Formats: sequence, C-alpha cells, structure tokens
Amino acid sequence: MHSPNSIAPVHDRRDDLVARFRTVRAHSEELARPLGAEDQTVQSMPDCSPTKWHLAHVSWFFETFLLVPHLAGYEVQHPQFAYLFNSYYEAAGARHPRFERGLVTRPGVAEVAAYRSHVTQSMEHLFDVADADLWPTIAPLLDIGNHHEQQHQELILMDILNLFSRNPLRPAYAPYRAGLARAAGEARFFDYPGGIVDIGHDGAGFAYDNESPRHQALLRPFRIASRPVSNGEWMDFIGDGGYRRPDLWLADGWARVKSGEFVAPLYWEETGQGWEAMTLSGQHAVDREAPVCHVSYYEADAFARWAGKRLPTEAEWEVAARDLPVAGNFAGSGYLRPVAGGSAPDRPGQMYGDVWEWTQSPYSPYPGYRAAPGAIGEYNGKFMASQFVLRGGCCATPDGHVRATYRNFFYPHQRWPFAGLRLAEDA
Amino acid sequence: MHSPNSIAPVHDRRDDLVARFRTVRAHSEELARPLGAEDQTVQSMPDCSPTKWHLAHVSWFFETFLLVPHLAGYEVQHPQFAYLFNSYYEAAGARHPRFERGLVTRPGVAEVAAYRSHVTQSMEHLFDVADADLWPTIAPLLDIGNHHEQQHQELILMDILNLFSRNPLRPAYAPYRAGLARAAGEARFFDYPGGIVDIGHDGAGFAYDNESPRHQALLRPFRIASRPVSNGEWMDFIGDGGYRRPDLWLADGWARVKSGEFVAPLYWEETGQGWEAMTLSGQHAVDREAPVCHVSYYEADAFARWAGKRLPTEAEWEVAARDLPVAGNFAGSGYLRPVAGGSAPDRPGQMYGDVWEWTQSPYSPYPGYRAAPGAIGEYNGKFMASQFVLRGGCCATPDGHVRATYRNFFYPHQRWPFAGLRLAEDA
Amino acid sequence: MHSPNSIAPVHDRRDDLVARFRTVRAHSEELARPLGAEDQTVQSMPDCSPTKWHLAHVSWFFETFLLVPHLAGYEVQHPQFAYLFNSYYEAAGARHPRFERGLVTRPGVAEVAAYRSHVTQSMEHLFDVADADLWPTIAPLLDIGNHHEQQHQELILMDILNLFSRNPLRPAYAPYRAGLARAAGEARFFDYPGGIVDIGHDGAGFAYDNESPRHQALLRPFRIASRPVSNGEWMDFIGDGGYRRPDLWLADGWARVKSGEFVAPLYWEETGQGWEAMTLSGQHAVDREAPVCHVSYYEADAFARWAGKRLPTEAEWEVAARDLPVAGNFAGSGYLRPVAGGSAPDRPGQMYGDVWEWTQSPYSPYPGYRAAPGAIGEYNGKFMASQFVLRGGCCATPDGHVRATYRNFFYPHQRWPFAGLRLAEDA
Amino acid sequence: MHSPNSIAPVHDRRDDLVARFRTVRAHSEELARPLGAEDQTVQSMPDCSPTKWHLAHVSWFFETFLLVPHLAGYEVQHPQFAYLFNSYYEAAGARHPRFERGLVTRPGVAEVAAYRSHVTQSMEHLFDVADADLWPTIAPLLDIGNHHEQQHQELILMDILNLFSRNPLRPAYAPYRAGLARAAGEARFFDYPGGIVDIGHDGAGFAYDNESPRHQALLRPFRIASRPVSNGEWMDFIGDGGYRRPDLWLADGWARVKSGEFVAPLYWEETGQGWEAMTLSGQHAVDREAPVCHVSYYEADAFARWAGKRLPTEAEWEVAARDLPVAGNFAGSGYLRPVAGGSAPDRPGQMYGDVWEWTQSPYSPYPGYRAAPGAIGEYNGKFMASQFVLRGGCCATPDGHVRATYRNFFYPHQRWPFAGLRLAEDA
Ligand SMILES: [Fe+3]
Ligand SMILES: [Fe+3]
Ligand SMILES: [Fe+3]
Ligand SMILES: [Fe+3]
Repeated sequence: MHSPNSIAPVHDRRDDLVARFRTVRAHSEELARPLGAEDQTVQSMPDCSPTKWHLAHVSWFFETFLLVPHLAGYEVQHPQFAYLFNSYYEAAGARHPRFERGLVTRPGVAEVAAYRSHVTQSMEHLFDVADADLWPTIAPLLDIGNHHEQQHQELILMDILNLFSRNPLRPAYAPYRAGLARAAGEARFFDYPGGIVDIGHDGAGFAYDNESPRHQALLRPFRIASRPVSNGEWMDFIGDGGYRRPDLWLADGWARVKSGEFVAPLYWEETGQGWEAMTLSGQHAVDREAPVCHVSYYEADAFARWAGKRLPTEAEWEVAARDLPVAGNFAGSGYLRPVAGGSAPDRPGQMYGDVWEWTQSPYSPYPGYRAAPGAIGEYNGKFMASQFVLRGGCCATPDGHVRATYRNFFYPHQRWPFAGLRLAEDA
Repeated sequence: MHSPNSIAPVHDRRDDLVARFRTVRAHSEELARPLGAEDQTVQSMPDCSPTKWHLAHVSWFFETFLLVPHLAGYEVQHPQFAYLFNSYYEAAGARHPRFERGLVTRPGVAEVAAYRSHVTQSMEHLFDVADADLWPTIAPLLDIGNHHEQQHQELILMDILNLFSRNPLRPAYAPYRAGLARAAGEARFFDYPGGIVDIGHDGAGFAYDNESPRHQALLRPFRIASRPVSNGEWMDFIGDGGYRRPDLWLADGWARVKSGEFVAPLYWEETGQGWEAMTLSGQHAVDREAPVCHVSYYEADAFARWAGKRLPTEAEWEVAARDLPVAGNFAGSGYLRPVAGGSAPDRPGQMYGDVWEWTQSPYSPYPGYRAAPGAIGEYNGKFMASQFVLRGGCCATPDGHVRATYRNFFYPHQRWPFAGLRLAEDA
Repeated sequence: MHSPNSIAPVHDRRDDLVARFRTVRAHSEELARPLGAEDQTVQSMPDCSPTKWHLAHVSWFFETFLLVPHLAGYEVQHPQFAYLFNSYYEAAGARHPRFERGLVTRPGVAEVAAYRSHVTQSMEHLFDVADADLWPTIAPLLDIGNHHEQQHQELILMDILNLFSRNPLRPAYAPYRAGLARAAGEARFFDYPGGIVDIGHDGAGFAYDNESPRHQALLRPFRIASRPVSNGEWMDFIGDGGYRRPDLWLADGWARVKSGEFVAPLYWEETGQGWEAMTLSGQHAVDREAPVCHVSYYEADAFARWAGKRLPTEAEWEVAARDLPVAGNFAGSGYLRPVAGGSAPDRPGQMYGDVWEWTQSPYSPYPGYRAAPGAIGEYNGKFMASQFVLRGGCCATPDGHVRATYRNFFYPHQRWPFAGLRLAEDA
Repeated sequence: MHSPNSIAPVHDRRDDLVARFRTVRAHSEELARPLGAEDQTVQSMPDCSPTKWHLAHVSWFFETFLLVPHLAGYEVQHPQFAYLFNSYYEAAGARHPRFERGLVTRPGVAEVAAYRSHVTQSMEHLFDVADADLWPTIAPLLDIGNHHEQQHQELILMDILNLFSRNPLRPAYAPYRAGLARAAGEARFFDYPGGIVDIGHDGAGFAYDNESPRHQALLRPFRIASRPVSNGEWMDFIGDGGYRRPDLWLADGWARVKSGEFVAPLYWEETGQGWEAMTLSGQHAVDREAPVCHVSYYEADAFARWAGKRLPTEAEWEVAARDLPVAGNFAGSGYLRPVAGGSAPDRPGQMYGDVWEWTQSPYSPYPGYRAAPGAIGEYNGKFMASQFVLRGGCCATPDGHVRATYRNFFYPHQRWPFAGLRLAEDA
C-alpha cells in the first residue's frame, strides 16, 4: 500500500535525511513499547499484520534496497528473513504468504529487536562510508525507506486496534486523553471555482510515485464542507433508517448491509447506554462532536446520498487543501482517535489529521504515470484497480508524513483504516 | 446492468417505438428457438441466468413499469411472478435470490411463453388505448423497455455460451459460419489531439442515464490502434510468459493467475493440435486473425503493459469512435464470435461490434449525474463502483443497440462477456 | 450409495430376472412422466442429481457391466456417455464431477430416452443370445442392475422433492392422496430377549454385499416401539425447546442448530396456520398422526434423549423386523409421504415403509466383510465410514426392494432422505 | 474431547490425589517453559488452541467445578475468565468462540500464570478446609480435574508441533534426543481366540465415563501385529502408489487425496535427501524403523487394505493389551516422537506409547452408557458420532495417564494427533 519515486531528486540535505532516519527508527520502537510479546504476534485478520512483522519488514526494506546492494561486505542476518519479511515485492523473490504472518512466532520480539538493531547500525555504517558518488544513489532510497516505515507506523496502530477489538476484555493500547469540549457545529460549505487546475506533486520535497506526474485537470465549480461528518450526524443517519433504505446504497454496499456486515461503523457497539466505540484507549461512549471513523466507502457514499450531497473528487479535495497548513490531529497529539476540531470562518477545518477522507475517485494512475522498473516500482502501481482514494491523513498518521498531494487508497469495503468523510456538492 | 433516463424526451415517433417493440419481442423468441427446455433452465454460475428467466424478466419489466401503472384493469398473470422475475429493483419489492434462479423449473418454457404472450398482447392493448395525454408518459418507458430487452438478448447468448462451455460434449447453439479469409495485419496507431472535448449523450435519440450529463473532459494527445488485439498476438503474449511474469500484472490479477484461475482467455483449451476455443458454434481452433475475446480487465491491462502500451480511457475511445458509422460484426451477422475485420487506411476499424473493449476508466458517474428517483433509477446508478467501462458492442449485441456514448461495465475479473481490448498510447 | 455381491449365487429363475428387468425399466420411465424437461435437468444441491442423469446412469450401469463385456458386437451409443454417467466407480474410468451434473443440458430428455431404449433393446438381445454357459455369469449382474435401478427410483423422488422445495411456487409432482383418518395412538414397547443372534443375509434371494457375511452378534435385552415417532410428538419436542437445549444434542448436531441449519424437520415451514411441510404433492399442513420425516441423525438422537429413550441398534432392529412381512407404505401406495399406520396388538407396526429409521449403528463392515474386486466392489464398501445405518425402507422406496437385512446409510447431517426414527430402550 | 464419571467412587487415598494435583499442576508449567510468550499465544488452526489458553482452561476447570461450588468465600479472579476459558461446556454458560482463541492476547502469559497460581493456592485452601463430609464430593472432581489437565498437556504438545510446523524456520520445542539404534524387524502376528469377553473399565482406579459400563462383547478369533506400522513400511506404501490407487481408499479419504490434502503423513516433506519430518525437536530425516505417525484414519485404513490386513477393533486391541504393563515411550521419555521399540518373542510390543493406534471402531457409547447430568456430563458423551477410537497413548501422553480401557477419539481426517496404526487380521 505504498511506493517510491526513484526518479525524484532528493531535496533534503544529507544531515536531514539521516536525522529523520534516526527519529523514525526510534519512533517505531516507541510505538511497540506498550505491547506485550503476545500483542505483537497475532494477525487478527488477513488485512492486518503482527506488530513484530511490521517492525521486521521495514528493516528488511532498508536491508534489501540499501544495505545489500550498497554496503560492501554486508551480510544478511538470517538467510530466511527475506522470505519472511518481504511483503509483496515479486521482484525481490519468493515470500511467506501474507495470510500466515500470524503463524510465525519465531523470530520473537527479542530477535526482531536484534534484527532492527543490526539493520540500524549497518545503516549508520553505510552513512559513514557513503561518499559523494554513492550518496545520490542511496538518498532517494533512504528517503522512501523513512516514509515507508512511517506508513507502517500507522498500520501498527490500525492493526492493534483491530486486534484489541476482537478481545472481549477490550484492552487499551494507550491511556485515554480527554478532548477539548468543542461542539462540531453546523457544517458550512466553501465555494471553489471550476477550471483547469494543476494536480499532483510539483517536485518539491518527497512524494510517492503515485502523486506524479503533475498534470492538468478540469474541474467544475464545487463546494466543500467546513469539517468532516460527525458521529452525531451519523447517529442521525442510523436513526433515519440509513442502514435500512436500499435506495441510498450502491448495490455492492447494500449486499453487505443485507448480509449483516454493515450495521454501524466498525467498532461501534450498541449498549444499554447508547453507542460505544472501541478505540486505542479502550471502549468509550461515542462522542457526537467528533468525526465519524471506520466507515467503508459504501457507507460514506450512502451517507452523502442521504444528506443530499456527494463525496468530493480527489482533485477537488486537493484544491481545497493545498493552501492550508499541514496541521491537525495526527498521532503525535496523543488522542489516537478523531476529536472535535475548532473551526475557522474562512476555510475548511480538519482537512489534515483526524480521519482519512474517502473521495469519490477510484484509485487510478495519473495521466502519463509509469511505475519505476524493478521491485521499487511495485510500491504503488500494481494496486491501481478497484480501490478508492482517501486524502488528508488521520489521528494515527505520524506527524509530518502527509501532504496535500498524498494519495492513500483502500478497497471500498475496508473499514479498519481510520477513514471518514467530508461532504461536497456542485456549486 | 442497465438503466433508463426517464427525464429524456423521446425523439422517436410513436409508430417507430411500437414497431421496435414488436421486432424486439419477436427477436427474443427467435433467440430461444435453438434451445431445448433443458438448455433454457440451467444457471451455470451466479453471474448467469437461465434463458427462460431472461425471457420472463424482460416481460416483467414491461408489466411492472407500463402495464400495472398505466393500463386500466390490467391483471398480473401470476401473483408470484413479480417475486421470481424482478432482477434487482429494490423499490419494486422483494424478489427471489439471484443465485437460485436455476432452481426454479416451473414455470417452464411453455408457461413463460404464455406469460410473454400475455404481456405482449396487453402492451398492444395499451398502445391501442393510450391517448395523447398518456403517450408522453409511457413512451420513455417503452423506449427503455425495448433497449432493456435487447440487453438481455446479449446476456442470453453470453449465458448460453457459458453453460455450453461446461458441457463436456461442447454443444453448439448455432451452426458455424466461416469468416472471410482476412489477415489482421500489423496494427497501426491513429493520432488524436488533446484539449477539452464534450463527452456523453447529446440528447438526440435514446441513451441510458449513465451516458449523461454531457460534459467537458480534458484530454491529452493520444494514439489509438487500428484494430483490437488479435488472438495471434495473445498467443505471442502467452508464449512470452505473459501469464508467468508478475511485473506485468496488477496485484489482484496476479493473485488470480497464481490461483490458477487465469491461464489463457476463458473458453480456450490447449489440445494436442494447439489452442481451441469454445464458441456458440462449438469448439474450434483459435483463429489467429480474429480479435481476442473473453479476457478480464486484468489480462487486458497486463497485455497492454507487455506490449508497451496502455488501454484507452473511455473518453479517448469515444472521441475516436464518435464520427464512425455504428456498423460492424453484431449479432445479426450470424458469426456470433469475433472475426478478423477489414481495415481502412484512415481510421480505426472494428470500433463497433466483435468485442467489447475494456477501457482503463473505472465506471463512475459523470459529473452532475443523478439517478432518477424510484425503481427505474436503480437501472445503472447503483453499480458505479469497482467496475470498469467497456465500449463498442460485440458479436452478441443486437444490431442497432449501441452508440458512441454507450457505457457497458463489468467487474475487472469477469470474463464471460465478449470482451477484448484495443491498445492506446500517449502521443 | 449401493453395491452388489457378485459372489452370491442367484436364486431367481431366468424368466423372473428378465421379467423384473422389464418391469423396473418401465417403472423408471413412468416415474419421470410427470416431470417436464426442465424438472429433469436441474441439480438442486450436490447430494442430488437430475432425473435425466439418474435415468441415464442406470442404463450406463447395464451397458458397462453387462453389454460391453458380454454382448458380442455391442457398440456404446456415445463415446462420452461413460464419462457423463459413471457415478463413482473409479475402476470404470474417469468421470464427470458429481457437483456439475446439473450443468449438462445435452443430452436432453429425448436423447436420454433414446439411450435408455438402446440399452433396453440391447439387453433383450443379450437375453436372446445368452446361452447356459453365459447365464450364470450375467445373472448376478442383471440382478444387481435391477436392484440398482430401483435405488435410483427412490433417489429420483428424493431429489425431485428437494428441487421442488426450492421453488417458491411449491409445485407438486403427484396429486395428493388423502390418508385414512387414523390416530397414531400412544406408542407401546415390545420386549426382546438378549443373547447371541445371527445377523445379516442368509443367502436366500438377492442382497447387497454389505449385508454379508451373516455373523453372530451379542444383544442385551431391549424394547422397541410399536411405531415410528410421529409429527405430533415432534411438535411437542419443538414446543418443549428441543431445538434450544444443548444438553439434548451431540456436539456436531448442536453446532448445526446454532448455525440456523436445524430449526425443524427439513421442508417444514411455520405459517400463520401452524406447521406446513413440502411434500411430493405440494405443501400441506403437517399431519400430527403421521411419522415424522426428513430429520437428521442428530435430530433423531436428540429427540430420543429428550424422550428418555434411545435409537435401536441395527441388530436390534433386524431382530424385531425379521419375522414380519415386508409390507407397508412403499412408493406403490401412491401416498409418496409417510402416513399414519394401523397398529397390531402383538408386534411393531410400520417397520417397513413410511420412513427409513435411523439406527444408532455407524455404517461399518460386518466381521469378515471383503468388497468384491473391481468396479462392482465399489458399490458399498468404500462408504463405510462416518455414516449411520437406516433400516426398513420408506414411502418412496419401490415395492419389493427392501428386506429385513437391508442396510441403507447416510451421513448424520443429511435430511433429504425420507428418514425418521423409532425409539428403543434397554429392557 | 474428554469427560468424567462422577458416579465412580474414588479409590485413591486423599494424600495421593492431592499429591497428584501438585505434580500435574507443576508439570503443565514445566511444559510451557521452553515457549516464549509469542509461542503460547497463537492458534495455528481451529483444532488447536494457544498454550496459554490450555494453561488457563484447566485452571478454569478446577475453579468452576471445585472452587466456586465448594470453597466458601471463593471469588473468581476475573469475571470474564469463565467466558474466555470455558471450552465446550454448554451447561457452564456462554463462552468465547473456539476459533477465536488465538485473537485474545490479553490476559498474557504473566496474567495466566497469576491465574494459575490463584487457582492452585485456592485449591490448597480447599484441601485444608475440606472435612470428611465434603471430601467424598470433591474427590471425584479433583480426580477428573487432574486427568483433564493431563489431557491438555498432550494437547499442548500436539498444538505446538502444529504451530511450529507452519513456521518456515522449523523451530524446535525441545532438544533432539537420539533413539537407540534398533531395527523394527518384520512384524509378527499373535493369535487370540474368539468368544465373549468383558470390555471396559472394571471399576478399579480412575476411568472416564466413556469406558463404562463394562460389558460383554463377542469376538471372533483374530491376530494382531507385534508392533505398529513403521515409517519404512509407509515409504513402501507410498512407493507402491498407495496415494494413487483409489481401490485402496474409502471414498471420503480418496476425495482428500485428490484434493491434494493427503500426499504423505502430515509433517513429512520430500527434500533432495529423501523424506524429512517435522518433530518437536525440529525437522529431521524420517527414521524407517520408528512407527509412522500423523496419519489419518483414512490413510491407516488404506494402508491396511494395501497390506492385505485390516485395523483391529477396539475390543480386539483391549483384549491384546489388557495383560501387558502400561509402559512405553510416553512424554516422560524425552523423545517426544515415536521411536523404534524393542520386541518380545511372546507378546505385542509398543501397545502403549509411541503412537495412538487407530482402530476400526467408530466412537459409540458402550451398551447402557448414560452421560452424567450437568456440565460434567458433556465431557465425552456429546462427541459420540463420526469419530473413531484410538488406543494406547503416544509419545506426548503424560506418563501414567492411559490404561487398557482408555478410549481416545478423533475424526477420521485429523492428523495432528500422534496417531499411527497396528495391523490385525481374522485368524
Ligand atoms: Fe511495506
Ligand atoms: Fe434486466
Ligand atoms: Fe448408482
Ligand atoms: Fe478441557
């Protein structure tokens, strides 16, 4: 679910890249600290992976794409780790079936920690010995390796929430941090003109290959909401029969409603005291003012139809977001759940952070897109069918990871991402 | 897999509409003639339906949307036929599960014929009694009912081919009509400029609602091939390891290759004498010169990558097709399989007929699209996720059914449609 | 689900065997008469087969085991019929997958009729030319072929009922014949002494190989009920929470209760007017006085536990039945459903006919059993695991087909046979 | 897969029972010592459970059946542990789905250890306070609790082997202990007369309820082999096409061969150097002299047919075993795999230990068997359908756990038990 742009020149200074590497590596280990060896081992569903697998896989990435080809004399720590910790890179050789990651109890957390340490130290050695000739080759790979590990930091949190939600004891990953007592307020809509706009990465700073090439898109005038849809609005949708009215739904979504799969957002549970939701801090009453989260594309689309609106396209979202500061409720805030945001009178709020926002755009290649040759080209390109684009990052995204042009993507039925929605309409 | 635009004014004269009704109804019965009661009863897979179900369902459509609301005193022939023969219209009431259509042996073919006759005669009665006030209401419904029945005529042929392909005796639906001895020749590429173009139905003549609204799209200069990809080229793809090279494939497609689902186009079989393919005229040697057929989107996309090209977008296809006559190898030709076409020096050939052409465009609503309220609005709109658009019609499409703006759609793994591909590239 | 004892000498006279052949063949065709080509084609679940498959398969049996080896100059009618109509005889060559029998619409009913006629006439020719040397070889095969076809006559009725039960219109195979107005009355229990008894076929008349060798079994004193459990008693079981009390059930059965598979006997439906059941004569109110039918072993076992009794062993059943006349409500009665029987003061009633009676005996080989070599040895032996023995025949069994030693067998979850139960207890 | 006979008087002295409790509890913890928290958490397939679940479940058993009803003032440690650690006792309340045991990472191994300690200490307290009135009530429950925990000790080893076999690194649970260099030698057959024999538990010492009532059975003269079938003989079976000849197989087993499920014993792998097998001490070359292990009933039955023999009945096995000392390669030997045994000239060897021996006897109630009322009655009785009896214990069975009358049972397709076979034949 991610990939590099090996062609892109790296703008960051060597020192910055190295510093970022150190920060990122340390942060992954920080994330695992609250988790026991038991927690780090289990795969709760095929879409998820064990924490210790994530921790090892991101190290394998550095080992495979930097150490093995570029550090003379490097020896892989274990001959079968490449088999175990390659995720989906066909060009990087045979690999363990994704669905069986939870069966591998050894190497355990201690061995994975040792592997991480081995890779981190070897990377430091590579930094020491890389001369000015080698650096331009490895810098883009280091850059992507850093961002790659950040993506897995978000996946660790997504996957642990899913795992803990399957435990009848509803354990907490982190203490509950109370949000500010804010009201979501009525959503307002901001107007944007149509016309030809430039969409995609402009070449400054890091971006994945799927954000390129920058290209022209033709928009019609549109409006976009001041905030994401809230839990309170979602309760209204439920109360109004949202999950009982087929006219609101795409056929594939309605089939999942009828099968009993969709009755409320994932992790919601109706108790004697109303709706509660499982979070990374255990199960709590649903906050009406916070953005709704863990809904599928089908549910987001049905909600928008119920509301007489629609989802924005990814180009519309990008236009609305690109002049806003990339700030919001990311993982660093410590909430680890969406919270009610403040509002500004003149621009949409919470475009970044809180929840990934489903757009109505299928995840397709931008005009002129070509995946890079080799394994690194598998990062993003081979997933460009049957998924939808989400924008803006979420409460589990590492700070500093996303940008206006960032394209996340999931299948329309998937609900374990921290995904919500923002309404739009034709102007 | 289809729907009306109830808003659209009907341009055809009353006489023309009524004549078309009669022709279409008679043609459906003609199509069933070579089939025994046994053949008309079985559902070979969930995507398919029994012939007699198709024959009844299209009659239910006229009954439900024209006779019941608009013919005073009309009585439904059987109280449970609405339950049995409603396909997917939630607003039209409860209905029999799609996957169990093949379990209903009664009503049999004779009763279905009687039901058809009852509906046809009642429609004639409606034509007799409809005054000038009523006609504008029923004309668009009649129009869509006619086109609807034509779509099911194609489905009957698709479904019978699938059924007969599962029979070890490889029966034939129709006699084999030999094609002309034409060589496909080397494909040439025609250039088209970029810029803003108008896409979608312009309001003249019948169109489904998914072809509207007509809207502007921004294209980049492109080239499109002179003909569809041929069976001979597909054999080269196979011979070059096309089904063994993961770098050519989207991840979801490659998973189906590895599972053994995709090894060659559907209905192909490698025998001691080379490739044979099951057709509506039984199993025959694959003709290298004819367009390849019964490939999935994943296969079409992999082939294009292998060839160093890409699939066209649906807008590109429409631009290339819209000035060409809507003529080609449709069902009326009697081949009932794609055949090698002749070529013209100055324009793409076989844009219409032979094979539906996969485009790279996900099936999404056009900007500003709104489904009509009520059951008729379910015709197309609720399928707008996870499918891809195909254009141009095929050898099983009734003559006169398609047009340049016509949008067919299937899931990317589906192979039982008569679907092939045409290559494109950036100019 | 059946097999011959090729070693057994045939006691019937040549004339009798030939007469029986003619009667059996004609009766199969009689059974199919009320069925349309549509009805005869569909396979409603993997356990069932299409009527026309049954009609062809029994002919293939005669062709394969009598005509091909023993009639000089015999030519098979179609080279692939052996592939299509071999059921499960590994030694007789490759064959069409059982689960796909319903996909084969051609040969249709007319061709199957022609195939039957071809086989029947060839058999007559074989009778004409078989001399005294050949006859002892073919007589046992003819004998088993006749009984084999009778087994399939029962399967035809079982399978058609299953098919028609899946049709929302609930069609009838045969007109409803009203039963006598009999009350089931209170069941009484008859005592039998323990000791060593001889069990199994004594060599007189036809029997399948699984009824041999006759051997000694050690019984303890037991009692057996005067009649099968009635529908009224089953309603009491339901009313008393029979399907809600796990303590009554074997674990595998309870899992099916919890999954929703078992809520009442198969084909029962609770309507506003109480319980109705689908029968070969359409859907009717359940008759409290008639034996319960279409229950699984798990249900029968749970009922017996609820009633404070147990199921009989097959040896107990055989001891209780062996001195009774083989008479009862078989298919010839025309009810085609179990009906309330009369009672005799001095012996169990309805041991034969009405419903196959589940015994508590797993279907295992008798001591010393050896399957015959070759294809004919596959008839029964290879099914001797995980199934349970049923005794006595049912309302769909051809008259004259069963005997006291006859062992039928089904998996404990199967409910489409006409299976019920009779209670027993230790004396 | 197990159950008590609460009616049975307890013959052991109070001191012995308490001492056994202490030994058993300590031994479970010893078994878990080589396992990391990761290893103890994962469920490798639905039939298996995590080690820490086993450790907690056996404590729940003592808590539920002894502490809660019989220790005044006892408080359960956690209100939801009963939900998590009840295995299958319907009468003991709702419980966590069996297939999801591997999703529960908390309580972790440390909390489970604390729970065990809490239960063990509370049991000691119960021993202290139980007076002579109470003891007769709790003694049989303590007795069964001890044996129950021993059964789970074997399951822990079975389940860990299964888990480790799914790890491409093939980890070892215990160091490899080399066996003595013994040759299996040619199997000899010992003769036993027929007649009426007493089968089942005679009331002395502990036994499960399924070993009762002791009853008479009628045997025919038979012979039984001097040792279990060896790996070398199994290789001969494979080499002779054992897995390619349908005539050797029961139909349900052959279906699994054709699907690719059965190609050799579970855990066998063909490498460049011949057959290797995964064991609790990692993967090693298969020892031709040791008993074959991890075969299904279907494979055992096919082998016996290939060898011209048959499997013994459970009564035959019991007759052959009952005068032999209960000694052999149990878990205490430290091999943790079957090894070649020595032979005695006058009696069968290795009847106990090494491998559970499949018998041809379906797992059915003995004549007159009644399950005890209440939860404890669910221990064995509700599994008496569709399984087969195995006898004799294996290399993973705790020493002192089995006896001649002990009835183990598994479904005929299951291969993760340490199960092999011994041949028999009619005399
Ligand atoms: Fe990754
Ligand atoms: Fe339709
Ligand atoms: Fe048969
Ligand atoms: Fe247990």
